[in-house]
Amino acid sequence: MSTVAPPPDPEADPRVRAVFDDIRATRKSNFINNMWHWLAFDPDLLERTWAEVKAVMATPSALDLLVKEMLYIAVSVTNGCGYCIHSHTASAKAKGMTDAQHADLLMVIALAAKTNQLATALQVPVDPAFDARGEQ
Amino acid sequence: MSTVAPPPDPEADPRVRAVFDDIRATRKSNFINNMWHWLAFDPDLLERTWAEVKAVMATPSALDLLVKEMLYIAVSVTNGCGYCIHSHTASAKAKGMTDAQHADLLMVIALAAKTNQLATALQVPVDPAFDARGEQ
Amino acid sequence: MSTVAPPPDPEADPRVRAVFDDIRATRKSNFINNMWHWLAFDPDLLERTWAEVKAVMATPSALDLLVKEMLYIAVSVTNGCGYCIHSHTASAKAKGMTDAQHADLLMVIALAAKTNQLATALQVPVDPAFDARGEQ
Amino acid sequence: MSTVAPPPDPEADPRVRAVFDDIRATRKSNFINNMWHWLAFDPDLLERTWAEVKAVMATPSALDLLVKEMLYIAVSVTNGCGYCIHSHTASAKAKGMTDAQHADLLMVIALAAKTNQLATALQVPVDPAFDARGEQ
Amino acid sequence: MSTVAPPPDPEADPRVRAVFDDIRATRKSNFINNMWHWLAFDPDLLERTWAEVKAVMATPSALDLLVKEMLYIAVSVTNGCGYCIHSHTASAKAKGMTDAQHADLLMVIALAAKTNQLATALQVPVDPAFDARGEQ
Amino acid sequence: MSTVAPPPDPEADPRVRAVFDDIRATRKSNFINNMWHWLAFDPDLLERTWAEVKAVMATPSALDLLVKEMLYIAVSVTNGCGYCIHSHTASAKAKGMTDAQHADLLMVIALAAKTNQLATALQVPVDPAFDARGEQ
Repeated sequence: MSTVAPPPDPEADPRVRAVFDDIRATRKSNFINNMWHWLAFDPDLLERTWAEVKAVMATPSALDLLVKEMLYIAVSVTNGCGYCIHSHTASAKAKGMTDAQHADLLMVIALAAKTNQLATALQVPVDPAFDARGEQ
Repeated sequence: MSTVAPPPDPEADPRVRAVFDDIRATRKSNFINNMWHWLAFDPDLLERTWAEVKAVMATPSALDLLVKEMLYIAVSVTNGCGYCIHSHTASAKAKGMTDAQHADLLMVIALAAKTNQLATALQVPVDPAFDARGEQ
Repeated sequence: MSTVAPPPDPEADPRVRAVFDDIRATRKSNFINNMWHWLAFDPDLLERTWAEVKAVMATPSALDLLVKEMLYIAVSVTNGCGYCIHSHTASAKAKGMTDAQHADLLMVIALAAKTNQLATALQVPVDPAFDARGEQ
Repeated sequence: MSTVAPPPDPEADPRVRAVFDDIRATRKSNFINNMWHWLAFDPDLLERTWAEVKAVMATPSALDLLVKEMLYIAVSVTNGCGYCIHSHTASAKAKGMTDAQHADLLMVIALAAKTNQLATALQVPVDPAFDARGEQ
Repeated sequence: MSTVAPPPDPEADPRVRAVFDDIRATRKSNFINNMWHWLAFDPDLLERTWAEVKAVMATPSALDLLVKEMLYIAVSVTNGCGYCIHSHTASAKAKGMTDAQHADLLMVIALAAKTNQLATALQVPVDPAFDARGEQ
Repeated sequence: MSTVAPPPDPEADPRVRAVFDDIRATRKSNFINNMWHWLAFDPDLLERTWAEVKAVMATPSALDLLVKEMLYIAVSVTNGCGYCIHSHTASAKAKGMTDAQHADLLMVIALAAKTNQLATALQVPVDPAFDARGEQ
């Protein structure tokens, strides 16, 4: 069940068609996952979202593409977004994430959540040494 | 302000002393940040927490140490833990994170939070292709 | 699957019957959605919850009823409550939310989550100009 | 304290200058709040963030500008972003939010969080009637 | 800094005075903490909030009063509400929470957050045996 | 659907077998719930997680075992972890949680989430009286 009905023939809209074509070209695959079908209920939202995802996640930058997928997973797990966890775990595996790296990723995000709770529960004051402005 | 008072002379307790000595040896630094002073109100909690942090964050594993720091930041930002964001951003910089990598990290975690909202708001159904069991 | 079993004949309990009658009268509909069937496992919890939902969400106040439904959606998406997102998106549509407004709502909640991450990651200090007490 | 040091003379960079000029022109005010000073540590991140904030929050669309500020607050409160709560409450007041509307906003976001917990704790199944695809 | 200015002489309003009197009588203390001063900006919100807090947190029920304070802390830590963590940790200590119980509380909420991440990251399917309806 | 495939014959691995044997012995039951089957994709992660869950949740300590289950539920609801809510509600019931206690638990976690929103939205400053260090 979902809160909008995806358009039954999305590529009849030329704006949707252009985005779907770019997704296929960028990913070198004919598979368009559900996220884009659902976002197609509003072509403006679809265009903006894809443009940003492409710029950040599919373009070489200061961080490795696989590292970016794992960061995406870390945020998605913490926010509890089931769809995002599934889609980005699949992407990370497609980009080469091994089972050992997957298990390591899980240990880090689990530990971080745990120590977040401890620091927050104790309301530990931030050490002045951590202030970036103090480093200047 | 905080919810427990850290012990004024924590190393008078030999269990606390042993943990603090190991933190100094592991990090090759005399600096013990506030988190450990506050956890010292309960030596058992201190020992367990440090043992896990050391095993996961200070030990070579399938993921690079800097990548693990960035994953920690991603979780901490999503959970809104100010202390953790400060301490792990400082750690990541100490392990070589550049300003360009920092900005890239921020773009990924911000984008992930954004698309998490979209997928959740739409309640997009998970594509069967993403099921790991289907890959067998 | 759920964590309590809803009573099979909830209206056999006069307290539940009174709440269900009031839901039907307030909404001018015979449909009682699952939330109320499940809360009926404890009549006290049911009565209190409906009384508050009716007072806040079904009573004219300083904010428009549709605006309140959209605010409800914004919180529910951020908390990841699938049931609440479904029920309040349906309510918002019943109160006249158009597809264009729905898309706009999604853009705002997605952007807010994104900039929340940026401000939190940077730990930006609050500008003194934003203090309400300074305005007096 | 914060995790990056904002550039001491941000407008020496022409890209930052152009963004700050546009903020001033759009808002008809000389005040540039801290968020933009901190984002200026990376001009690319600054440009992208402002472009999106301007497009969504400062441009007429299907939703009223004040409603969008209140939605922003609802998300920011739920995410616990202190900076964002301060800056957008100030914006909402500048756009005319009354004290009565502010109190009403708080009641809705508090109630939503409360019923989110109840629906999640009970794991209430979504009513088939809420499926948008069923409405076609 | 805060987003509303608390009224400088809150008890000049008889509705606020009545709530403050009841807080003092219920708690057998003259101390009115900031939460109530800030909520006094809207007497209706103040009355409703106090009525519910009194009914749930200050009235004997199926759960022990100290257990309820610890549950409150668990939610507040997970939501990252600094004010609430401080006020309810103080309440729990006033109701007899020992340092050993405090440390134990922290271990449970930290472990829960950790295993929440693991179950969510793996998207573990719920065992049919856990369905409450199956138990009938 | 899930993000890893649980091993089809997990107990063929002696490390997994040892953990499963200990789960059965500790719980005096032959039922191994899905969480452990899924974690078995990485024996190291499985061993560490079970060791901690056993030490914290199945060992007498300063807090009652049922209280610890309810605290676990409070965190899991706030994080929106469906699996964890199901498994720990079942555990709490197995340890004697009554329907009245369950309803009371829900009222507390719902109220806490509500007042968390209010304190956060108002950005109420923490009373100096709540500082644990001031109490010494």
